[in-house]
Amino acid sequence: MTFFRSRWVQRPEHVRELDPGALPQGFRAAGVHAGIKATPAGGGAGALDVGLLVSDAEATVSAVRFCDNALVGAPIAVTSEARLDGLRAVLANSGNSNVADGSRGLETARASQAAAAEALGIDAELVGLASTGVIGRELPRDTLLAGARACAEGLGPDSADFCAAILTTDRGPKRACLEVALPSGAAVRLAGQAKGAGMISPRFATMFCFVETDAEFEHDTLDLLTGVCVKRSFDRISVDGQLSTSDTVIAFANGAAGVRIEPESADELALGQALDALMRQLALEMVADGEGATRVGRVVVRGATELVEPVARAVADSPLVKAALLGADPNFGRILQSVGQALGSGTQFVVDLSIEGIQVASAGVVLDFDAEMWRTLERAVESSEVDIDLALPGEGGETEVFFSDLTHEYVTINSEYST
Amino acid sequence: MTFFRSRWVQRPEHVRELDPGALPQGFRAAGVHAGIKATPAGGGAGALDVGLLVSDAEATVSAVRFCDNALVGAPIAVTSEARLDGLRAVLANSGNSNVADGSRGLETARASQAAAAEALGIDAELVGLASTGVIGRELPRDTLLAGARACAEGLGPDSADFCAAILTTDRGPKRACLEVALPSGAAVRLAGQAKGAGMISPRFATMFCFVETDAEFEHDTLDLLTGVCVKRSFDRISVDGQLSTSDTVIAFANGAAGVRIEPESADELALGQALDALMRQLALEMVADGEGATRVGRVVVRGATELVEPVARAVADSPLVKAALLGADPNFGRILQSVGQALGSGTQFVVDLSIEGIQVASAGVVLDFDAEMWRTLERAVESSEVDIDLALPGEGGETEVFFSDLTHEYVTINSEYST
Repeated sequence: MTFFRSRWVQRPEHVRELDPGALPQGFRAAGVHAGIKATPAGGGAGALDVGLLVSDAEATVSAVRFCDNALVGAPIAVTSEARLDGLRAVLANSGNSNVADGSRGLETARASQAAAAEALGIDAELVGLASTGVIGRELPRDTLLAGARACAEGLGPDSADFCAAILTTDRGPKRACLEVALPSGAAVRLAGQAKGAGMISPRFATMFCFVETDAEFEHDTLDLLTGVCVKRSFDRISVDGQLSTSDTVIAFANGAAGVRIEPESADELALGQALDALMRQLALEMVADGEGATRVGRVVVRGATELVEPVARAVADSPLVKAALLGADPNFGRILQSVGQALGSGTQFVVDLSIEGIQVASAGVVLDFDAEMWRTLERAVESSEVDIDLALPGEGGETEVFFSDLTHEYVTINSEYST
Repeated sequence: MTFFRSRWVQRPEHVRELDPGALPQGFRAAGVHAGIKATPAGGGAGALDVGLLVSDAEATVSAVRFCDNALVGAPIAVTSEARLDGLRAVLANSGNSNVADGSRGLETARASQAAAAEALGIDAELVGLASTGVIGRELPRDTLLAGARACAEGLGPDSADFCAAILTTDRGPKRACLEVALPSGAAVRLAGQAKGAGMISPRFATMFCFVETDAEFEHDTLDLLTGVCVKRSFDRISVDGQLSTSDTVIAFANGAAGVRIEPESADELALGQALDALMRQLALEMVADGEGATRVGRVVVRGATELVEPVARAVADSPLVKAALLGADPNFGRILQSVGQALGSGTQFVVDLSIEGIQVASAGVVLDFDAEMWRTLERAVESSEVDIDLALPGEGGETEVFFSDLTHEYVTINSEYST
């Protein structure tokens, strides 16, 4: 099965899929069970909960993006003060997000950064941190430090254990390794490992994405590409509209393939296309794996620049639209209502709506449907991915948001847990 | 059982509860099954779906509030052009909201206004309209007009049928009739009939509230009181954060009791207290009756004026906070995360949080809890009404939002319906 499963992401022709656990040259990774997650009651090995990813080359450059929450975890606070343009490693854990634990949490984060750095023989400012899990509980320091040291001793060329160590409610790993044929004739590798089963569940569903390439980049070029691709992927998805305290994206480029990507070159464009497809598919996997999700919707909004974003978010985050998606119900009334809510009173409601390419409303008025057209519409929304298109007044703006349905399983997952 | 069931609303001492179906002097009401809602498949009487409420006195004054959606129904568009300060009647129906049906919907609304006015022998501009139900389907005009005429012939001194005719997914009627002893020594009546099982489900859960008093008011005084009380009641509740296309509040005062309420008098204050308690309890009934709701939460936020409202809404509308309320889980992590989301990055996260009066976080850091304190907290959130208090940086602002939990039943109600 191809990694590019969504109809909304095409595999670029110059991209070939490798073993999903492979890494680009010069990267190594590991994952262990340190004991942050509980050991199964019946005995046996505990789930992996600490992972380490390292680039061997000193000249590695990096690009980093965090979430926009006023409350961020200690790992983000500490990483923010590291050398963001030249990170060589990331230490990640699941099971506890180290958020809202005050100075104790900050000290644990700094200690883990130092322990990983020492074990790797590099400066602490070259190690990024990422934690995901319960909020407001103490992250056991010694457990994390022991995990970091164990990872450093077990580094290898496969990302499987690292990828497993960052998962929480995810149904399975989210990763790929691509070979990208560049116009200059060279080939480089591009790999990504992600987690996320919700924009956020503060308990344990924060989103991470780590990307590695063995191409050589200037920091500014990698940073620009990463920023653009994040905006088109992880910034465009919603499971429950809840912004995490721990979202982290880190891209590493170590130059091990001996191929330099010049700014504004054809090679940059080709690698950018591959990075874009990689991140968008990983983002779509988070939505499809959204807690309890059974279907994914995409809402595309065109119109005045300042209107498209709030309208797209309003539709994607409406629990009524999301429940209708679960029920395979082409409930245009709920879509129009949420659009009107986002526009607010005083705005003329001149909105066109299509569902799966079938026009439903024109200039704010629902079209007359005959029974046959109803059946066509009802059948169209039974697929696993459903398209909603909205045209608002004005021009120049266009955006999209991918969202999951609201299911009984989501309610179960999020109500049957006791803090 | 008292009407004032919530611990968050006290019955003012000068207020006595009458039969909930009673109306103030000079008001009459009716409700019929016209056929907008389907007749039961097995035969028998159909649910009431058209209601009419009338004030007999020519000197009646009124005050009106609508929702703030860019998409509003034809009934709101037509009522907006009526004599809003002197309405004498409201024609309401359930089963179809007459929204997004273009000029056909507007013509139906105007025709029903004219039919009700003719049957009552008053000008059409004195009749308000309110419809609730499915969006984007034709409201059958002749059925509605026949219902309006049947209501006009069946008017009586009890509000029971009228109240039933405006219900949709509501579990039962929401109404009260109060006798208010005024400081001047006189007594007047104040009655209210409401519907709502969600801020909105575009299918059929719009919110209405009609209030009548036989006190005599200047329009400006009634309008001011109504506006203040709406802001403290229906503007402070959320079932799913979804703004209706049809929310309507109409207050009528006909002077039939021969008691004039002077502006800024002690009598105005006393009647205002009664109106406030009436509307707040009706609003709380909507939340408690929110589609599938089992518990009600209240979030109170104090701090800088511009921060309190977005933070309160963010907490109340978070599906994660709402699912935790269902599970009787004192999940402070989700509360803090939603606060941080509303504040956005760049804001210092200095937030105090208490749940049911028990402090959980101070200056953004979760307190150390021992096992006994945990049990106390867990027991505290098992009640049917749960208090959350937040203190943000800054001063001068304070607000509250009442919200329902997110339940499996909510998902069922909103997914198992086909447009």
